[in-house]
Amino acid sequence: MTLSVYLSGEIHTDWREQIIEGARDLNLRFDSPVTDHDSSDDCGVTILGAEDNKFWHDHKGAKLNAIRTRKGIEDADVVVVRFGEKYKQWNAAFDAGYAAALGKSIIVLNPPEHQHALKEVHAAALAVAEEPRQVVEILTYVLTGKLPA
Amino acid sequence: MTLSVYLSGEIHTDWREQIIEGARDLNLRFDSPVTDHDSSDDCGVTILGAEDNKFWHDHKGAKLNAIRTRKGIEDADVVVVRFGEKYKQWNAAFDAGYAAALGKSIIVLNPPEHQHALKEVHAAALAVAEEPRQVVEILTYVLTGKLPA
Amino acid sequence: MTLSVYLSGEIHTDWREQIIEGARDLNLRFDSPVTDHDSSDDCGVTILGAEDNKFWHDHKGAKLNAIRTRKGIEDADVVVVRFGEKYKQWNAAFDAGYAAALGKSIIVLNPPEHQHALKEVHAAALAVAEEPRQVVEILTYVLTGKLPA
Amino acid sequence: MTLSVYLSGEIHTDWREQIIEGARDLNLRFDSPVTDHDSSDDCGVTILGAEDNKFWHDHKGAKLNAIRTRKGIEDADVVVVRFGEKYKQWNAAFDAGYAAALGKSIIVLNPPEHQHALKEVHAAALAVAEEPRQVVEILTYVLTGKLPA
Amino acid sequence: MTLSVYLSGEIHTDWREQIIEGARDLNLRFDSPVTDHDSSDDCGVTILGAEDNKFWHDHKGAKLNAIRTRKGIEDADVVVVRFGEKYKQWNAAFDAGYAAALGKSIIVLNPPEHQHALKEVHAAALAVAEEPRQVVEILTYVLTGKLPA
Amino acid sequence: MTLSVYLSGEIHTDWREQIIEGARDLNLRFDSPVTDHDSSDDCGVTILGAEDNKFWHDHKGAKLNAIRTRKGIEDADVVVVRFGEKYKQWNAAFDAGYAAALGKSIIVLNPPEHQHALKEVHAAALAVAEEPRQVVEILTYVLTGKLPA
Amino acid sequence: MTLSVYLSGEIHTDWREQIIEGARDLNLRFDSPVTDHDSSDDCGVTILGAEDNKFWHDHKGAKLNAIRTRKGIEDADVVVVRFGEKYKQWNAAFDAGYAAALGKSIIVLNPPEHQHALKEVHAAALAVAEEPRQVVEILTYVLTGKLPA
Amino acid sequence: MTLSVYLSGEIHTDWREQIIEGARDLNLRFDSPVTDHDSSDDCGVTILGAEDNKFWHDHKGAKLNAIRTRKGIEDADVVVVRFGEKYKQWNAAFDAGYAAALGKSIIVLNPPEHQHALKEVHAAALAVAEEPRQVVEILTYVLTGKLPA
Repeated sequence: MTLSVYLSGEIHTDWREQIIEGARDLNLRFDSPVTDHDSSDDCGVTILGAEDNKFWHDHKGAKLNAIRTRKGIEDADVVVVRFGEKYKQWNAAFDAGYAAALGKSIIVLNPPEHQHALKEVHAAALAVAEEPRQVVEILTYVLTGKLPA
Repeated sequence: MTLSVYLSGEIHTDWREQIIEGARDLNLRFDSPVTDHDSSDDCGVTILGAEDNKFWHDHKGAKLNAIRTRKGIEDADVVVVRFGEKYKQWNAAFDAGYAAALGKSIIVLNPPEHQHALKEVHAAALAVAEEPRQVVEILTYVLTGKLPA
Repeated sequence: MTLSVYLSGEIHTDWREQIIEGARDLNLRFDSPVTDHDSSDDCGVTILGAEDNKFWHDHKGAKLNAIRTRKGIEDADVVVVRFGEKYKQWNAAFDAGYAAALGKSIIVLNPPEHQHALKEVHAAALAVAEEPRQVVEILTYVLTGKLPA
Repeated sequence: MTLSVYLSGEIHTDWREQIIEGARDLNLRFDSPVTDHDSSDDCGVTILGAEDNKFWHDHKGAKLNAIRTRKGIEDADVVVVRFGEKYKQWNAAFDAGYAAALGKSIIVLNPPEHQHALKEVHAAALAVAEEPRQVVEILTYVLTGKLPA
Repeated sequence: MTLSVYLSGEIHTDWREQIIEGARDLNLRFDSPVTDHDSSDDCGVTILGAEDNKFWHDHKGAKLNAIRTRKGIEDADVVVVRFGEKYKQWNAAFDAGYAAALGKSIIVLNPPEHQHALKEVHAAALAVAEEPRQVVEILTYVLTGKLPA
Repeated sequence: MTLSVYLSGEIHTDWREQIIEGARDLNLRFDSPVTDHDSSDDCGVTILGAEDNKFWHDHKGAKLNAIRTRKGIEDADVVVVRFGEKYKQWNAAFDAGYAAALGKSIIVLNPPEHQHALKEVHAAALAVAEEPRQVVEILTYVLTGKLPA
Repeated sequence: MTLSVYLSGEIHTDWREQIIEGARDLNLRFDSPVTDHDSSDDCGVTILGAEDNKFWHDHKGAKLNAIRTRKGIEDADVVVVRFGEKYKQWNAAFDAGYAAALGKSIIVLNPPEHQHALKEVHAAALAVAEEPRQVVEILTYVLTGKLPA
Repeated sequence: MTLSVYLSGEIHTDWREQIIEGARDLNLRFDSPVTDHDSSDDCGVTILGAEDNKFWHDHKGAKLNAIRTRKGIEDADVVVVRFGEKYKQWNAAFDAGYAAALGKSIIVLNPPEHQHALKEVHAAALAVAEEPRQVVEILTYVLTGKLPA
């Protein structure tokens, strides 16, 4: 068995690197959104031309990012959605809903203070974790049947 | 033509009533989540038994609410998702993602200060409005072809 | 909102009647398998001709019952699966798996001594109840938002 | 032609090894659930934290196992479901129902005394066998057209 | 419960009328292809213009008939496919395959001499009958649980 | 049998009225896009606010129209696509492709001079007609089996 | 581009070999049913045990063959269905219907005397050929754009 | 991540070559229709026999081309649809509609003078570009996160 894993959500800490590094010996394929904040915001106008209106500036970029995001989620067996401590992070919750409707296995990763606000997202998840290490342990168990010592 | 409309999101203002009242002469069917905050939080433990742990208290409730929410979105032609001025509102963004993956027509309703944070949700929408009145005008136009005078 | 509910599983107690009676004022449509044990066992050979071999006797009947069962589950929004105290009840678990793969909302109804053996089925359910009264309360809440006093 | 085969059900005998060994020269890919009973029961709390309540202890584990089980069934062309002589084995019947709703080719493997209790599951199967050797012969025939001498 | 039933196949005897008459007290909706042989052959050229080439003459007609046939099968819960004693009847077997791929419940109705030639079609059916009366009895049982006296 | 029919394409002649009038005694439900050219062009900016850039002016309107168009095509059994004598009419061809991918029965209505340019669209259609009267005759035949005298 | 091709139907001439040989330089993958008539008839009872009743003898075999046939059709991009000069060949027409409902590209290969009887199958096909050589030419054109000299 | 890209539409300029050359270092797979105009028009009659009637001449060819076109679009993650300066190009708009209904990511490439006529197609696209270079830049960004300097 091999698994495709999409790492959605927060882009300001190294949680993706921790998971990819921790799982480097497993038969996994990882995809992620573009995690460079400025490129992600400006890709649309940089390639397709400037916009005076911030709404369309953002719209053009968000649609280009959607090409990658949709592909990543649709190809995934497991979608890990990370909610960090700051910002609205509606794109993370949107990805979780998108993944849920497609029947993907969802793992949510969030600090405990977000527990109540995430209850609807948790209700659609197969696991709720607080640390990237736990995600690695889940992926290890799912692929190999091995539990941490 | 008749349309089924699901009104998702913020529950602390009367935006649902404004839309339903404004559209009362149209051939529409509206569904919504349970909008009583306390009932929505406590339904699981009230019916299925108390939990010591807040996570499971919330989990039981969120899953009962999911029976209604999924049915409402799956039956809808149009999903209106309202983001208010407060709270995390991850359930609203989750519903938008769920609706997007099912190919529903999405109308987002939000105050202008949330524009940038909602750009990924907007990218999946067919309309972005600021006032419930505009949603009524959209539904009127879609069903009857009539524009506001 | 109206809901279609399929009542799957145990056929030796009056749990179906309790739910249907308790929910008589709600906007619900109920379907069930044929609950007459002898008819359910013998329908195939009675209509299509006797079989010497018990396997084919059962096979002919089980396939006729599948016409009704599939239709009931596929049309349902909510599938209630009741596990009683006796018998193997593999058909109930089969129905639960069938409903899960179709994305139906599942409510499991079982006595507490079956908890461990049903954990995989519970993992796919949105509610786990012990009493028919609780199923009525869930359906009431989902449709009307009202909780028991 | 190559086939993906998921081996679901009973975990206390070596039937999986017999099939995999017997079919070692065929163009097949096998997947299975985690078959270590203790790991399968305790994986959730080991990775995600202990629970006082046995229901949630089991729930956390069953959901982690579902990540693997769903992936295995969804990727399979053929799902072999083995019912042994003991236990409730509702997870096996659940897997069979799940596979049936997805249109998978199902082979049921059970001792003759379970025939009547499994009639609904048999009605959804393309073959009912009693011995692992027969499953090997079926897979050999399907892939190569060769029958046992 | 109500059922939609599509009556496919042979058009030279009154088997459809026997079933519809026999089932007149049940909650059923019946659809059928156009059963006037000449109209069915010539509809295309009559409406859309003559063709010199018999292939295109037939092609135009078969495509118009497909509008009705597809709709009938796609809306059906149960597809009854009747093979008579004469002709090639490839359209009946085609309809059976179409219905099978859509997961419809199939009842095959054929004289015993066609048993061997229909084995692949029978393998996809939930019932194989020889008389229209048996189809009525199946539909009665599926809808009401009543078996013939 | 009843049919839902979506009338897509050219909006400058009365072909829709001819079909609806000609078929007034049949069991049909018709839907169409908004056929007022100005409203269709300006609906977006009228309801959601003006745009300096013609691209976004058109974009906002086209997305509102898509709410109606998608619903109409997705609910249809038969999609009639009319190509007139003027304009690019890419929206008509787009609707035909959308309908084809959803497996809808397509009837194309076009003047003979467009035959070659429409060959890919014709290849996905079940009928190609030149006059609205022929569409009425097809719908009459499909529903009633009656051919024109 | 590469194509998967399923070769369904008649098993008494070497048409499959002609196509596979003629297309040996193309980027194609071919699958077929088991074409040994005796094995195909007797596989069920050989592996799973004898039956007194010819119906069940055939039924067991047809279901084993269905494991291969379904897999072959579901994996195919193109399904070639060959009707020979003899026999009922209902399994070929069944496969064509199955393939049509799944949206596969269908090529029918038949002698001209079967034209009228196959009109419904032809109506669902993208090509109707008389010679295996033409199938090779179609596959060559589809993959390379080259036409026969 | 790797992407499959289908290049649909205009066949009289070298826009496909520009994109394929520009993206030669990316992890992409490209498919296209047959772009030889004469072969595309005449493939049907060349392989399957001449037709007197231009409609059937075109019909036979368009159906053979559909084998390739459908496969290309269905396998694609991204469909680029190019509208040139001349001709009706209804096949391009048809492909765009087909891709939209399948949920593919669509990039439209057209000269500015076609903006208004393409508004419905643009409404279904994730990007609208004027130059092949921009398509290369989009694909580069989606796969690597890199923007043009």
